[in-house]
Amino acid sequence: MKNLKVFNKIFEIKNFVNDNKKLNKTIAFVPTMGSLHQGHITLIENAKKYADIVIVSIFVNKAQFNDLKDYELYPQNLENDVTMLSEVGADALFAPSNSEIYDENFSFKIVPTAMVDCLCAKDRVGHFDGVALIITKLFNIINPHYALFGEKDFQQLAIIKKLVKDLNFNIEILSVETVRESSGLAMSSRNQRLSAHNKIKASMIYKILKEIKINPKIIEEKKRELLTNGFEKIDYLEVRNEDNLKLNMDINSPQKRRIFIAVYLEGVRLIDNISL
Amino acid sequence: MKNLKVFNKIFEIKNFVNDNKKLNKTIAFVPTMGSLHQGHITLIENAKKYADIVIVSIFVNKAQFNDLKDYELYPQNLENDVTMLSEVGADALFAPSNSEIYDENFSFKIVPTAMVDCLCAKDRVGHFDGVALIITKLFNIINPHYALFGEKDFQQLAIIKKLVKDLNFNIEILSVETVRESSGLAMSSRNQRLSAHNKIKASMIYKILKEIKINPKIIEEKKRELLTNGFEKIDYLEVRNEDNLKLNMDINSPQKRRIFIAVYLEGVRLIDNISL
Repeated sequence: MKNLKVFNKIFEIKNFVNDNKKLNKTIAFVPTMGSLHQGHITLIENAKKYADIVIVSIFVNKAQFNDLKDYELYPQNLENDVTMLSEVGADALFAPSNSEIYDENFSFKIVPTAMVDCLCAKDRVGHFDGVALIITKLFNIINPHYALFGEKDFQQLAIIKKLVKDLNFNIEILSVETVRESSGLAMSSRNQRLSAHNKIKASMIYKILKEIKINPKIIEEKKRELLTNGFEKIDYLEVRNEDNLKLNMDINSPQKRRIFIAVYLEGVRLIDNISL
Repeated sequence: MKNLKVFNKIFEIKNFVNDNKKLNKTIAFVPTMGSLHQGHITLIENAKKYADIVIVSIFVNKAQFNDLKDYELYPQNLENDVTMLSEVGADALFAPSNSEIYDENFSFKIVPTAMVDCLCAKDRVGHFDGVALIITKLFNIINPHYALFGEKDFQQLAIIKKLVKDLNFNIEILSVETVRESSGLAMSSRNQRLSAHNKIKASMIYKILKEIKINPKIIEEKKRELLTNGFEKIDYLEVRNEDNLKLNMDINSPQKRRIFIAVYLEGVRLIDNISL
C-alpha cells in the first residue's frame, strides 16, 4: 500500500510533475471519471509497468454529457476510489473541482471532424467535443510520457489517438483490453445502476458479441433477441474498421475490424466491443 | 552571425528541443509566416533576452486564410528570411511543408468562442480557428518556455493568451510593441504589396490613431477623411477594452483600452492599434 498524494489544484499537480521530471522519472497518466472498478485498476497496473510514476485523475467532465440527468446520476465515491488507488500503488491523484477546470469565461471548443458520425457520437451530440477538450486540458496539465485508455470505449480511444497525432502531443497512447465480470459483462461504473436481476441479464451482451464473432450474419437476429429479452433499445450493433471506424460488413475484408454494441437496459446505456 | 539550424521535419525540431532541454536550456519560440521584417527581428531580439535558445517557425498557414487569393498572394522569401535569422542570431528555424503539418486525414477544429465577434474575426470567418489550430500544434511540437507575439495583431495576441489559459499550456506568452517604419506605418509583410505612392499614404493610419488618442470624439470624422483620401474600405475604427476586446467608448472608463483600425488600400488590408 502506497502513500497516495492527492491534489485538487492545477498548480499542485504541475509542481508534482515538474519535481518528478527533474529526477528524470517517466510519467504515466490514467484519466478517469472516478467510481473506480477493476477496469481502472488494470489500467493502473499496466501504467506501472511502463513508467516510474502513475498519476490518476478523477473528474466527472460535464462537457462530455449530452444528457444532464446522466451527468447528475453519474456515481461518485471518492473515499472508496482513494482506498483503491492507494492499494494498487498509484503515486498521485488529481481530483479538481469543476471551477478549477472550467472558469466562467472559458471560451474554446475542440471539435473532432472524423469518426463522429457513428457509434456513440450519433446519439450523443457534442460528447466527443467534450472528451477532446478535457483530454487536451489534462494532457497539458499533466504532460505525461504515456496515457492509458481502455478498449471498452473504443471510439474514444480511436479519437484520442487521432487527437494526439493531429495536434502533435508528445504522448504515447497505450490501450488496454476490456476487463469483464466473471459473467462476461464489461466493467463499467454504470453497472452499479442495474438491479441484481438485470446485471445477470446484461451478460447477454458479451455472449451475443462472441456469437456474432463466429457468424457475423446473425446480427439482425441477435438484435431481435435482445429486444425480446427486455433490452429497451439498441443504439447500434454493427461491424466497423478499427482504424477509421467505418462500417465494414465485408466478410473477406483484410482490415482489422470490431463488433460494436450499445443497448439500454433498465434505462442504463451499456456499451461493449470485441475484435472480429 | 550565428550558425542557424534549419529543420523541415517535426521529428527533427522535436529532437533539437529535447537535446537542448536535456542541457537545461530555456527555449523561446517566435512563430511567423515568413517574409520577415524588422517587426519579427524585434520579437527575436526580445526572445534572446528571455531564453537560451530561440526557435523561429515559418509556415504560411492556409487554415487561417478565409480568402484563398490572399493566401496565394502572401509573400514568401525563404532565402532572405534565413539570412535575416542568421544575422539576428536565432538558433533554429522550423520551416515545414504544408503536408508535414496537415495530413490529408486531418480531423480536428479548435474554435475560440469569445472575442471572435469583432475586429478581424467579423469579416474573416474561421480565421481565428485556423490561428488557434496552428498555434496549438506548434506549441505541442516546440514545447517552448516562452512564445512571443507582436501587439500589431492585438486580437490574435488576446486570443492566444486565452488559449494558453483555457487549454492549460505550460507556456508564458510575451507581447512586444508594434515596430514601425520611420513614417509611422506599422511593419507588415503586406506593405510590400503597396506601390511607393500608397506606402506613403498608408502612414495616415498611424497619424489618425494618434489624433484619436488625443480626442476620441473625432472617430467618425477620421473615417470620412480616410475614405476621401483613397482608402477603399474601413473594416473598423473603434475603441475596445484590452482584456476582453469589448467595445468601450466611455471616456471615463477605468479599463485599459486600445484604438483598433483595419482599412483597405490598393486592395491590401492593413491593420494597426495603439493604447488609448
